[in-house]
Order: sequence, then C-alpha cells, then structure tokens
Amino acid sequence: MTFDNKDIQAVNEIRVLCADIVQGPNSGHPGAPIGMAPMAYVLFKNHLRLTPKDPFCPARDRFVLSNGHASALLYSMLHLSGFDYSMNDLKAFRTLHSKTPGHPERCEFHTGKLSPGIELTTGPLGQGISSAVGLAISMESMNEYDKDKVVVDDDSRVYVFCGDGCLQEGVASEACSLAGTKKLRRLIVLYDDNGITIDGKTEISFAENVQGRFEAYGWNVLTVSQGNTDLDAINKAIIEAKKSDKPTLIKVKTIIGYGAPKQDTHSVHGSPLGAEGLVTLKAFYNLPTDKSYNISEQTRAIFASIIKRYDTFVDTYNTRLNACSYKNEIVERFDFVKNITPEKLLAAIQPKLAEFAASGVGKSTRQTSQLSIQLLSDTILKKYLIIGSADLAPSCLTTISNIPKSQYIFFGVREFAMVAISNGIASYGAFIPFDATFLAFFNYCSGGIRLGAISRLQAIHIFTHDSIQLGEDGGTHQPVETVAQIRALPGTYDWRPADATETLGAYCGAAGRHAQHVFALSRSGVGQFKSDAEKTSKFGAYVAVEGQNAKVTVLSSGSEVAIAVKVAEKMGNVRVVSMPSYSLFMEQSEEYIKQVMQCAREKCISFEPYVKFGLEGLCGKHVSIETYGLSANAADLAKHFGITAENLEEQIKKMM
Amino acid sequence: MTFDNKDIQAVNEIRVLCADIVQGPNSGHPGAPIGMAPMAYVLFKNHLRLTPKDPFCPARDRFVLSNGHASALLYSMLHLSGFDYSMNDLKAFRTLHSKTPGHPERCEFHTGKLSPGIELTTGPLGQGISSAVGLAISMESMNEYDKDKVVVDDDSRVYVFCGDGCLQEGVASEACSLAGTKKLRRLIVLYDDNGITIDGKTEISFAENVQGRFEAYGWNVLTVSQGNTDLDAINKAIIEAKKSDKPTLIKVKTIIGYGAPKQDTHSVHGSPLGAEGLVTLKAFYNLPTDKSYNISEQTRAIFASIIKRYDTFVDTYNTRLNACSYKNEIVERFDFVKNITPEKLLAAIQPKLAEFAASGVGKSTRQTSQLSIQLLSDTILKKYLIIGSADLAPSCLTTISNIPKSQYIFFGVREFAMVAISNGIASYGAFIPFDATFLAFFNYCSGGIRLGAISRLQAIHIFTHDSIQLGEDGGTHQPVETVAQIRALPGTYDWRPADATETLGAYCGAAGRHAQHVFALSRSGVGQFKSDAEKTSKFGAYVAVEGQNAKVTVLSSGSEVAIAVKVAEKMGNVRVVSMPSYSLFMEQSEEYIKQVMQCAREKCISFEPYVKFGLEGLCGKHVSIETYGLSANAADLAKHFGITAENLEEQIKKMM
Repeated sequence: MTFDNKDIQAVNEIRVLCADIVQGPNSGHPGAPIGMAPMAYVLFKNHLRLTPKDPFCPARDRFVLSNGHASALLYSMLHLSGFDYSMNDLKAFRTLHSKTPGHPERCEFHTGKLSPGIELTTGPLGQGISSAVGLAISMESMNEYDKDKVVVDDDSRVYVFCGDGCLQEGVASEACSLAGTKKLRRLIVLYDDNGITIDGKTEISFAENVQGRFEAYGWNVLTVSQGNTDLDAINKAIIEAKKSDKPTLIKVKTIIGYGAPKQDTHSVHGSPLGAEGLVTLKAFYNLPTDKSYNISEQTRAIFASIIKRYDTFVDTYNTRLNACSYKNEIVERFDFVKNITPEKLLAAIQPKLAEFAASGVGKSTRQTSQLSIQLLSDTILKKYLIIGSADLAPSCLTTISNIPKSQYIFFGVREFAMVAISNGIASYGAFIPFDATFLAFFNYCSGGIRLGAISRLQAIHIFTHDSIQLGEDGGTHQPVETVAQIRALPGTYDWRPADATETLGAYCGAAGRHAQHVFALSRSGVGQFKSDAEKTSKFGAYVAVEGQNAKVTVLSSGSEVAIAVKVAEKMGNVRVVSMPSYSLFMEQSEEYIKQVMQCAREKCISFEPYVKFGLEGLCGKHVSIETYGLSANAADLAKHFGITAENLEEQIKKMM
Repeated sequence: MTFDNKDIQAVNEIRVLCADIVQGPNSGHPGAPIGMAPMAYVLFKNHLRLTPKDPFCPARDRFVLSNGHASALLYSMLHLSGFDYSMNDLKAFRTLHSKTPGHPERCEFHTGKLSPGIELTTGPLGQGISSAVGLAISMESMNEYDKDKVVVDDDSRVYVFCGDGCLQEGVASEACSLAGTKKLRRLIVLYDDNGITIDGKTEISFAENVQGRFEAYGWNVLTVSQGNTDLDAINKAIIEAKKSDKPTLIKVKTIIGYGAPKQDTHSVHGSPLGAEGLVTLKAFYNLPTDKSYNISEQTRAIFASIIKRYDTFVDTYNTRLNACSYKNEIVERFDFVKNITPEKLLAAIQPKLAEFAASGVGKSTRQTSQLSIQLLSDTILKKYLIIGSADLAPSCLTTISNIPKSQYIFFGVREFAMVAISNGIASYGAFIPFDATFLAFFNYCSGGIRLGAISRLQAIHIFTHDSIQLGEDGGTHQPVETVAQIRALPGTYDWRPADATETLGAYCGAAGRHAQHVFALSRSGVGQFKSDAEKTSKFGAYVAVEGQNAKVTVLSSGSEVAIAVKVAEKMGNVRVVSMPSYSLFMEQSEEYIKQVMQCAREKCISFEPYVKFGLEGLCGKHVSIETYGLSANAADLAKHFGITAENLEEQIKKMM
C-alpha cells in the first residue's frame, strides 16, 4: 500500500496536535513527537494490531514508547485510534489526576488503575526498549501453551520507538545484546535518529556507529533516510523487518521538531513552541494557524478505517478463542496472574509444609529458596513462572526442574537488563518473573526495581549472599546498606526469611502480591526456631519468642533470628520478633505493630548485619554494621562486627 | 624483543603461584589468573611503567584489573615486581586485615590506607574498565598543565584487563562508547576472551560479535589467537595498540584455568583447584608438584631486571621533574587534591560570601550550585576540577566559564559510566570530579557511588530537580525515596542545601572532604532565612530559628527550610533546624546533636518532601511523602502532598 497526500496531511495534523498538547500546560516535549509522527502513523495505520474495544486483549501487539517524553504523540495516536482518551484528556496533559501524565504511565501508582494502550511506564531512558525484550520473550514462552496460535500468531510483534538517549543507556545495550543472542525476531525497534540530544549534536558524546553496534549484537538493521516525509520507506522497512529471523532496528533519520522555528536544535526538545512557534509550525504544514487541537474530518475518516481494522482483529481473535480447545486455559492464565493471592498459595502448599520445613533444617535460605520455588512450581506455578539469573545460577540457585526451556533465561552478566526484562514479562500478564543475582549488585539494577514498583508490576527479585556472608570477597560484595535502601522504596516488599518455613511463606507472600519483591537470602546455613509461614506471608513480622516478663524485645531477620532466639532462651526475660518483611510489617495496623513490638522503643533492640538506618522508629538500640565490610571468612567477620550471640547478650544486659 | 623458554617458565610459575594463593584460604578464583598470566607477564615485563620505589608517582602508567576476582594474579605480579607484598601477604589472601583481600581494594575503607599498585577497587564487573576511561581522560586533562610532558609523556597509558563479564555490563558499554567518541588513544584494554561465564559457555547469553561492537564504538581492535602461549603475539599487539590514535581492545583468546583438570569450564572460575588439581596443574607445567608458593631464582632474576626498568623510569621522572620550570605546580597539584579541607575553601570564599548570598536571593539551589562552583573555580579550584553532566547541562547547570575545554565532559545519556569515570578521575589524583544528572536517575548510577564510597574516592555528584519539583514529568521523575537511600550509604555525604549560602557552604564541605558527595538540588527558587555557610560545611545541621520557649523542633532541609522558618516565625514557640547534610550531622558528637534538636524526639517533627524513612531516630512525627509522585505542576503537587506551610502548622498544632 502506498501513501498519498491525505496520509501526509494526517501526519502533519498529528504533529501539530502534539505541539498544541504540549502548549496547553506550557510544559512538555514537542520535538520528538513532531519528528516521530510519520513512524507512528505508518505503524498504527498498517501494522500495529491494537484493540480499543478490548484494550487488554492478550493477543494484541505491544507498542512501547521507550522515549516516554514523547508522550504527546502516544496520547494523540490513542485518541485517534479509538481508545478512551478524549480531546479533553489531551487538553489536561500534565495536570493533576489527568489520564495524560507527562510520561506514559502503565497505571497510576496511587490507584493501580491500568491505562489502556499504555504497555509500560516509560521515561527513565533505556528501560522501555529493555522491557520490550521481556515482552518479546513472553510471546515466545506463551507460544508453548498456544499450539493453535490464538494468542501469539505469526504476525505478533513488539514494536518500540526510541531515541538516541535510550540507545546510549547501558541497560539498553545489555538488553539488546541478549535479544540478539536469543534471536527475538518479534522485536522491531524504530530508532528516531535525529542527531540531537539535550547537550547539542549527538556527535559530541555519541559518535559511535549504531548500525554497526546492532549488527554486532546479531540484529537486522534497516535504514530510512527520509524519515520526515517518506511514509512508504518506513512502511517497507517494517514489512522487511517482519520477515527477519532476528530482532530488527530500523534507523529512521528525522529532524527533531521538523517544521518548528527551532527545528534540528535541542531547544525544541523540552520546551513548548510558544504562540509564535505554533503559528510557524501550522503555516509550514499549511494547516489553519488559528485553530488548536484540530483534527480534520478527512483524518478522522482515515482513523475510522484503522479502528475498523482493529475491530476486525479483536473479532477474529474472539472467534478463534471460542473455537479453540484450550480457551479456558488461556483465560484462566491471564486471570490467575492477575488474581493470585498469598492465601491461595498458602492453601496450595499447606499439606506439604511440615515435610518441607523438616527437609530444610540447617540449609541456607538460598537453598530453601530453590526448594520453595520448586515446590510452588510443582504445586501450582509451573505454567506461570519465568526464571533466570544474571550469570549466577549455581550460586543463586535458580535452576528449577520440570519447567519448559523457554521459561528459563540465561541473562548473562546484565543485572539492570534482567530486571527491566522481568518488568516486561510482568506487564505481558501471562507469567510471574523471578530473577536473581547477589545482593551486592542491587545497585546495578535498582533503577529497574524502582520503575517496576511505580508501575505496580509484579516481579520477584532474588538476591542471595546477603550482608557479610560473601565474606572473603570483601567489602564490595557485602551489602550492609542495601536492605535499608530497599525498605525505603514505596511499592516494594523486602523479604529476608529466617529459615525454610519463612522462605516458603515469603514466596507465598511475594508470588501472591502485585508489587516488586526483593529477597535477601543467606549464603550459609541458618539455625532453627518456631517459625511461621502464614504470619510471614500475611504480616511481615511476628513474635518468635514471647519470653516471661520480658524486659527487652529483639527485632531481627534472616540468619540472625535463630541466634537471637538462642540468646533469648538462655536469658529468659527477652522477647524475639522475627521480621521477614519490614515493608509488609509497616503496612499492618498500629495496634498489630505495637502488640508485636510490645516493649517501649528504648527497650527494643534491632539485630541485623546491616546499617541500623530505617529501624530507629521501632528500636532505640541496635546491634548493626555501620561501615562497609572486610575480606575474611564469614565467621571471622561476624565476630569482628559483633554479629554474634555474645555481643547481642552483652548489649541486652546493658539495656536492662 | 622475543620471548624464550625462561619467559614461558616464568609465566607458568605465576599461574601455579596464583593457584596456590587461592588454595591457601580454600576460597577464591583460580581460573582467570591462570588464563591471564601470559598477558600480565608481557605487560609488566615490556610495557607497564610502574614505580615500586614510589608507588604513587604521578607519572606511572595505570593498570586496572577490571575483572577483580582475578586478584591473585595482581598480587602475584606486584609481589614479583618489587611492591610491598611479601610471600606472607600472598599466603594471607582473603583473611581478616590482610593486604590481599578477595578483590583488589584501592584502600581499606576502615583506615583509608592506600594499597600500593592498586589503582582502583574492582570486583563489581564493568566498573574497572569504565573508571579506566576516567583515568585516560585525566591524562589528557593533565597534559594541559604539563607542556614538557613530565607527568604525561607520549608513552603514558592506561592498561586494563577484563573478561566477558565486564563487557556484558551496561556501564562498560556506556564508557567504551564515550571512549571511542573521545578517541582516548591512551586506553589499552586486554580482553580475556575465554568463552566461559559462571552459567556456562558465553554463547548461551553473549553471542554478540565483540570485535564488531568495539569497532562500531570507534575503537581499534586487535586479536591474539593463541593467548595461552604466544607471548610474542601479545607483545606485538600491545606495540601496535600504542601506535593507534584510538582506544584499543586486544581480544586475547585464552582457556580459563589452562592446565588445570577442569580447564575450559566454569568449575575452574570460582573454586580452588584442591590438592589433586594443584598437582595436575604443576605437572602440566613441569613444575615441582611438592612445592607451594614457589618462584624459581631464574624467574626472580627476570623480575630483578624488570624492577631495574621501573627504577630507571622513576629516576628519569625525578630528574625531569627537578629540571622542569613548573615542578612546584605539579607537586602542589597532587598535594592540593589530597590535603584540601572545608576550612581552606571557606577561608578562600569568605571575603565574597555576603555578596554571593545577596546575589543568590530567590534563586533555585541548582542556580546557586552553578554560581558556587563558578566562584570556587574562580577563587581556587579552576585548575583542579573536571565537570560535566549526563546530557543535562542546561538543566543541571554544570557549564562553568574560564576552565580549559579538556576539563569539561559531555557524558551523553550515560549516568552509570559518568559516575564510574568520575571515580577514575578521582583516583588519578590531580582533579576533583563534579558530575550531574536529575535526582530521579540516582538509581542508574548508584552502583558507582557505592564503589566510590568504599574506595574513599572524592567525587561530587550533583543531582538536581529533587523530590516532586520536576512536577509535570510525573512519578518516574520524582525521587521521593532517593535521599533516604543516599543517607543509608556509609562513606557518602548527602547535601541538600536550603539557599545560596548553604549551597556554597555545602560545596566547601564537599570539595574539602575525601568521600563521595551527593547533592540534591531544587529546580525552583527557594525562600530566605538566616542561613550559615560555615555550620553547613562543618556540622551538617544547625539551629535556624531558636524560638522562645519552643515546644516543638522542626527538622527540615533544602527548599522546605524557608517554609518551616516562616511557620516558626508566625507561631513563635517553634524551633527550626536546617539540616543540609544528614550524614555529616550524624558524625557530630551526641552532645551537639542533642543541643541542636533540643526537644524530645516526640516533639520533633521532620519536614521534607521525601519518605520519612531514616529520620525516625531524630523525629517522632513527620510531614513527608510516602508514595510515588504524580504529574502536575509543583505547586499543585505540594498542596496535594501537604508539603505546605499550612499543613506543617496544622501538624505542629496537633503536637502541642
């Protein structure tokens, strides 16, 4: 299909609409939407299979605007394509509680309400394209359960728009290298190559040959040289890309803010054009200079037929779904991931809990983590999990048996991409992602955990070798401050279980809650006490030892709880609270928290091999580690840093 | 120079020594040291210019072991090359307080004592090679001040060893792309291409064409196909690399753990060989199977002549230095950066402080940040600072006038590489790095800040648009939890100044302290109160309003202090503490902290547009933001989240 003047006019109207949208609140980014309007138009008109009638239809293609600052373009396209974005919504751009925030948001964090047509929250550069790799992986994994190609057919694709910024970010490099290794042919990226970044021409900081880089990753690379006007060339490139057996990067040469007074400069990136600039832009495109938010009937008519194409797509899907032998499985799968709860998982594992606890005695929590995931997989989750690690499978113990190969990912040494990919998997809706590395590398990927938390995406991030336990490797590998950083993150649950029972309980709590979950697990074996899976998963903390006429409460977690329990049993008048999840505990009622902690703050002492930072609301005293670690075996370090029964006892005595 | 059997034997003895070292504590990584011994030998014998006599001689080449787990190799080479690492030190590998921790440490965090021969703390993969880019940049910048090429001559180079892991990490991609753009010809990387990672063969996760990727970055790429044995080829490649006008990657094909029973598998990566394995290895190399930690006289003799070469190098340097017209400037420069203090800087700016404060009235702290750096540069720091931002110069306001071009870096959209490069610049010793991005992107680069903190490297990281001030951009761009995460980091100072005076004070505090510094600066203008530069820089917090018979203390920082001051002035019986740096405040005596806070904890209320996490030790009540943000203008958001004078007043009244 070739394009004519009506199409060109439609593109120009979209550009001008985007500029109007940004002018509305006098805040936003007009340059990229203006430059990328041709790509968006061709994609939405001829290729993308969306479903405004049923925005979350599992069979839809996925479209990711990785350079999320170009949100005006996405909102315009969704508005024109029949999604629930009215012209008034576009006028409310970037205002409080609007449907059109500054960057596309998969859901509002506060309400959790999903935004139709927005697959991923984007804005922090590099993550959209990386999570798109997760979407493409999900499609491949879904294939396994969809022999009739009802959900994922030959044309199913993940389309991504990105700019220079995304491609400069390391996370995108990691994810794209993996996409090449995995030959993710369903992934098609349109790269807005406009040669401009905020600091000026890209050549001052980004002189690399992007085409060569992506070819080296094993991608198919195509180029559109006249991206401002040549709709046919964009269309042909997408057709070509769909034929490839590799992921494709389509490099589209454009001019940022094409037609605006400050086109081709960074000035048009992040500031509205102003009244005069808008007039110039509209005149450049021969569009009425006295109208705003204006779409012609002619363009509306084109989109009416696009919407018809979408409708046909979803109708065909529904027909095929109804005729398919495993309809219920498909429906049930997407519902399952949405509606799973800790209670359901607890009920499923309940009959095996005692046996499990017995088999886990003395094991490290990284070991009981592996056993827990295996048990949950065997019992209920097998079809629903995708798991992998950042090149640490033998250490983080992420290998699970009896799952299809497509549900295991070798992420390579790429922590940030791993988490971003997990976010993509979570947003796909058919799987719960589990990923893993050492806790010391939390900082490498926390940008992804933050974005996943804001997006309310459920992902389970397993971090093993917590605190000083990776002893000999030294301070760089000993995350003493990390759990505090995790606890500070809204929308994220920290989990530091103390033994096998708590580990299984924690996984029920995590796999059952739509949020980001971060596990901190021990390298070495842990001791025993009367632990509780249900309380772990539901409350985050509970009384492990009540103590007679107790004068002091010890608040502890993970490998240190059993030590605290021993001290309490020896001393008699000491209580111990096990806190597998601070964040979950803090969600409980004030009354519950008071009842668990019992003693006054001055008589509560925390006992963790971490900085005390963040625990000072609950405890007035602390046995903690306030500096980075040292290289030595774990026992020597525990002694050096006072994370011992002896020191705890001494500190408690001082409090009495 | 060609190599003979004596050289081959020396290499083999080094391999075996490394295996013995790892066997000592029965913990560590033998595979990579064994595989990389040939590269290390050729480099140390023929190329590297070190100075065991004067280990911190500024003119030395820099050698960075980016795959820091291969530390046994580095310690062996330093031992043989005449550095202060005895055989007993090698035997104490990975034990408490030894000179030979599991990963190379630039200094021990606890004592700050520098380790001779160790340029950078490495271990977290990807960062060594990235910081090496900073070392190469420093050499170029130093050039400007060294017309006679005394410190940096034509042969000065930064040599890096790295493995697959480093090259998979996004941070290395970012840094290497920038190194290509900047044509950093002094950077020579030897890549240990052994085809093995922890999860197995690299092809399962890393099938990319590394050579193609680096050529696309603008690098010169060379290959050594027989890296296990062909010393001549390694030597020729290094000679070739030195001639290039680009950075060079030398891909050295090796077999991991060459000669060990489990060679060429991941089993030889992170576990000692065991007694039997050691015998096999020693037999393979025809070395005595009954001896450990054994270096022959023949090999010692070779190293004696290597040490002589080093001695000649440092003697020549000293002769040239003494003859040079700007000797004092060189000496003074490295001393200056080492010995600078807040007091010196305060004294320097004192005469201009009043004028500066007046000119900063009503400005945002990102603006007064730019003015502060300009003033410090004009007054004292001009020769000593290297500054730049991750493609946000117009927003973070990092452009400074009157500094040489080579001291300004356009980092591109590469936050993690930026921080890693700053760490490299800091470790070079001639400059203090200042870098910048939005506070929302702290998570993108916090892995570098953590490593810099452990390494006690002085770098100043400027993060602007703090909290909800980047209003319209929405929750992704509103770092509500980030300052808590920074405050949790040992060895790192958080700075959130309230106005011009505090901003300048904070920069004196930061530029005068050897540590990582993280600034959180406002986008919008701030109010006025009686602020104090000296107390800011020295104590981190002080009483801003005493209040008569005050019943409540408000603890605040940044843009909120002036609001709190207004409330206090209106109410009369309220005190206000301005806390530009929590970390510095927490370093003060208990007495000082008590005296500043004055009221009981229950009568102290914090007032920050952040999560309260971490402030609960100081305050029992909080006006805070406990969720992610929303897209709206800053004023609407402040109202929505209650970060207003009205809400603060109401909360204080409730406390009274």
